[in-house]
Amino acid sequence: MADETLFEFLHMEIVSHVYKEQQSSRGTMDNKDRAVCVSVLEGMGFRVGQGLIERLTRDSPSFKDELDIMKFICKDFWTKVFRRQVDNLRTNHQGTYVLQDNKFALLTQLSSGKQYLDQAPKYLAFSCGVVRGALSNLGLESVVTAEVSVMPSCKFQVVIQKL
Amino acid sequence: MADETLFEFLHMEIVSHVYKEQQSSRGTMDNKDRAVCVSVLEGMGFRVGQGLIERLTRDSPSFKDELDIMKFICKDFWTKVFRRQVDNLRTNHQGTYVLQDNKFALLTQLSSGKQYLDQAPKYLAFSCGVVRGALSNLGLESVVTAEVSVMPSCKFQVVIQKL
Repeated sequence: MADETLFEFLHMEIVSHVYKEQQSSRGTMDNKDRAVCVSVLEGMGFRVGQGLIERLTRDSPSFKDELDIMKFICKDFWTKVFRRQVDNLRTNHQGTYVLQDNKFALLTQLSSGKQYLDQAPKYLAFSCGVVRGALSNLGLESVVTAEVSVMPSCKFQVVIQKL
Repeated sequence: MADETLFEFLHMEIVSHVYKEQQSSRGTMDNKDRAVCVSVLEGMGFRVGQGLIERLTRDSPSFKDELDIMKFICKDFWTKVFRRQVDNLRTNHQGTYVLQDNKFALLTQLSSGKQYLDQAPKYLAFSCGVVRGALSNLGLESVVTAEVSVMPSCKFQVVIQKL
């Protein structure tokens, strides 16, 4: 059990550290400051995602197409990082994917009431980076965003950037 | 496998982030700056250690004495956090304990040559905090330090603070 909670506790500490340092250097937080925090966390996630996928795919056969990669992310990768599979994967078959996780690991420690809904983005930035980093290492550049409408359920939108 | 590496990758990111932010805000790093970084990482570890031990001991019987607590830290706690047991525990029976881990999880990603020996402290601060946080939650205030003489082997010294 502690293995999982170790990651979650550490993640919480990082989020709170990054926000605190930004706040203390500027006094208050405006939208631009928040954007800086999100970007710092996203960057950390990106590098972690790259590292993880490298390990995970070392012995995997290569993927046949983009959808095949997305399925791997939703099953194997998600299970390793967030301890469950994505509940639902949808795509418009034009490079946009929506991954829905109904019980997202990094949100389960927050109360599921509405009062924390506006706090959710800060707990999702790192994970968006993780997904983007993993895809990047598999040759897919993407933009990854996340939104929460009811805690602890979360939707990640992945838009693949065509060259 | 990724579960473990997830923690290790994330730990690496945090260390590098904390050092980078200190450096960028001051231009260069002197010993005082390094002490600030160590203290930030130690503080994060402390809170993570507190959280983890709370989960881990929820269903455990209470401990009969200090040595009993230290044995729990060396076996169950160490295994959960650092994936192996401590190799050797020594004590002077006066509140000082030396925990030796011959293959410390957070050092195995560094090259085992001598060139990184002076970098080791930055990768140990978080872990010292974890141990201190865990002990604190079990009612033992302590000072925890760590030293490396040959990578990736590491000695943690715990000095219990008597009231």
